[in-house]
Amino acid sequence: MKFSIQRQTFLKYLTDVQRAISPKAAIDILHGFKLELFPDALKLTGSNADITIQTIISISDEKANLQIFEEGSVVLSANIFSEIIKKLPADELEVSVDSRLQTTITSGKAEFTILGQDADMYPHLPELSAQSSLVLSSDILKKVIDQTSIAISNQESRPLLTGIHLLITDQKLLAVATDTHRLSQRTIHLGEAAGDAHYDLVIPGKSLKELAKMLNDDHSEVEIQIADNQVLFILGHTSFYSRLLEGNYPDTKRLIPQTSETTATFNAQSLLQAIERSSLVSHAGRNNVVKFTLDVENQEVIITGNSPEVGTVEESISFSELTGKNLEISFNPDYMRDALRSLGNTETTLEFTMPLRPFILVPTEAENDFIQLITPVRTA
Amino acid sequence: MKFSIQRQTFLKYLTDVQRAISPKAAIDILHGFKLELFPDALKLTGSNADITIQTIISISDEKANLQIFEEGSVVLSANIFSEIIKKLPADELEVSVDSRLQTTITSGKAEFTILGQDADMYPHLPELSAQSSLVLSSDILKKVIDQTSIAISNQESRPLLTGIHLLITDQKLLAVATDTHRLSQRTIHLGEAAGDAHYDLVIPGKSLKELAKMLNDDHSEVEIQIADNQVLFILGHTSFYSRLLEGNYPDTKRLIPQTSETTATFNAQSLLQAIERSSLVSHAGRNNVVKFTLDVENQEVIITGNSPEVGTVEESISFSELTGKNLEISFNPDYMRDALRSLGNTETTLEFTMPLRPFILVPTEAENDFIQLITPVRTA
Repeated sequence: MKFSIQRQTFLKYLTDVQRAISPKAAIDILHGFKLELFPDALKLTGSNADITIQTIISISDEKANLQIFEEGSVVLSANIFSEIIKKLPADELEVSVDSRLQTTITSGKAEFTILGQDADMYPHLPELSAQSSLVLSSDILKKVIDQTSIAISNQESRPLLTGIHLLITDQKLLAVATDTHRLSQRTIHLGEAAGDAHYDLVIPGKSLKELAKMLNDDHSEVEIQIADNQVLFILGHTSFYSRLLEGNYPDTKRLIPQTSETTATFNAQSLLQAIERSSLVSHAGRNNVVKFTLDVENQEVIITGNSPEVGTVEESISFSELTGKNLEISFNPDYMRDALRSLGNTETTLEFTMPLRPFILVPTEAENDFIQLITPVRTA
Repeated sequence: MKFSIQRQTFLKYLTDVQRAISPKAAIDILHGFKLELFPDALKLTGSNADITIQTIISISDEKANLQIFEEGSVVLSANIFSEIIKKLPADELEVSVDSRLQTTITSGKAEFTILGQDADMYPHLPELSAQSSLVLSSDILKKVIDQTSIAISNQESRPLLTGIHLLITDQKLLAVATDTHRLSQRTIHLGEAAGDAHYDLVIPGKSLKELAKMLNDDHSEVEIQIADNQVLFILGHTSFYSRLLEGNYPDTKRLIPQTSETTATFNAQSLLQAIERSSLVSHAGRNNVVKFTLDVENQEVIITGNSPEVGTVEESISFSELTGKNLEISFNPDYMRDALRSLGNTETTLEFTMPLRPFILVPTEAENDFIQLITPVRTA
């Protein structure tokens, strides 16, 4: 096996594939990149138990300037190989593998020799027999992942809750995550192109967070293929496979209150700053709790926090509207912080029912498409 | 005690003083800022066993906009207080301390209450009875510290070597650090203003590294006052005290070879890159060693490295001059890397005597003012 390639372009592809490679993987060969050289392309594969990323560099890719001298395949230690590629002196590099898998990497006047592993020992990818596929815009998919992943559980005791539930039906995509203390739900209208597609799947949160890092903030298309136990995202020349989580995701629809007794509308950004101030005190205490006092008659919203370890905080918060019944409610400010951060600089309405019932945050615009729910904390 | 002040300016001063405060300090009250309010200024103090930083904010400082309502003093938890100041909502803030040391911090509509400690319990600074002082330019002092501190030892078994040795005599300042494997020496010509000043002191490396972070890259003046067991650096309104290390620093002069058998001149930047490439292999091995082969007849310099764990590297390095005897010499590439980084993008000459004798790196310009020495490694 022997090829030459443009260094920076090669490095970019390697970095994408390396996202799937974990030093924790139990199978030693998965610590490496698989390189496969065909008559017209170089295929790179990286994988761990959950994710596999594969990319194809074609000889027609002018930036890559791939020159193929001899076909073949090898597995090379991902850490060492990518560090070498990063530090090589020239714009171009050559990789050459002999029959004993001795791999020579040459660039300018520098020459590295490392030992590769047999590519036949690399695990085979499960075949994906997808009947149909779905197309989303890259920026929308990225946003859905960012907005829902905040509520993913990190408790392995309930594996399903470590994933994001995607329900595709009626030409809509509903994405939900919950750790039982909070919930984030995002709806995307797919339009007629979605036809009568119907899918119900749970994708590991870690997979989607890695995928989000590879998604561009543009309108480039991402094709999604779904099979029984795998999902494949196709981004240009790169394929991102993830296993699915098995089982039935809990019915989250009934958790979201349909009515409210008190509503208050804030600028998400300035409410976030007040929450972060109150956290300075609550984080030092044993119970990470702050209290909202919504006084409708006097048109005042007060946030208070106290911990014997640090002291107290009290702040009157600006709002644009406050209606309904008076209310005192206590909650974990970190949940509120995460929810507000995902909203950015928008107007946000908080809708409460009772002091011990979950309340929701919705952006004033498009309120049905993005709902975040927080369960309050019972205080003495 | 009660004052108001401009938040951003106050934060900048607090951040400077906080450099001296360590959560590891054994005395609890040293985890706090001491605030002392006089009729015309606010004095902030932070300290640990080695360093004390003190700054004075005057009522004439327009940016600070300090308003003094009631004199007094208090000690406030550095972590909590600086976090609160960072996150306060308005441009101005007010601090008010009652007779029970309850401290209220108000800004905009936010109000924090934290408990302070009695400033009388704060340790007293040792008095500094300096007879004379020395003035250096901030950027030069910063450079001297950066260039010599790379060779400081981190072995507490020989405390003196964890410091930088400063010898001021004959209108010159000589700064030296060594960990016995390498040495870095910088000379500064003080000029006639230094008079017949003569000092010989060792300042803890940690102190000087903290000081360097506070020094500007400009020609502002730093006044240095030296007493028996303390040194004081005065930067505008800020005073930086450090204890000195006791004992006689080893005589390093005799370590530096005065002649050479082989010399080679490189661009420091491109030699650094080759060293970093060779380290990719050497770092993976048990002995972190690379080999230089200087072939004067064939006018070639080769760097090689190998480790059974990773593989081999070989590179022919560009140079501008190579004279003297042929030589093979092995060394720790990390020492060479640190030395070259401190040289920046300059021409550098390496002067060797024998394979097992220390060699030196000197910038081609100003070669006597900056010398770095590296002890080679004996290989089988």
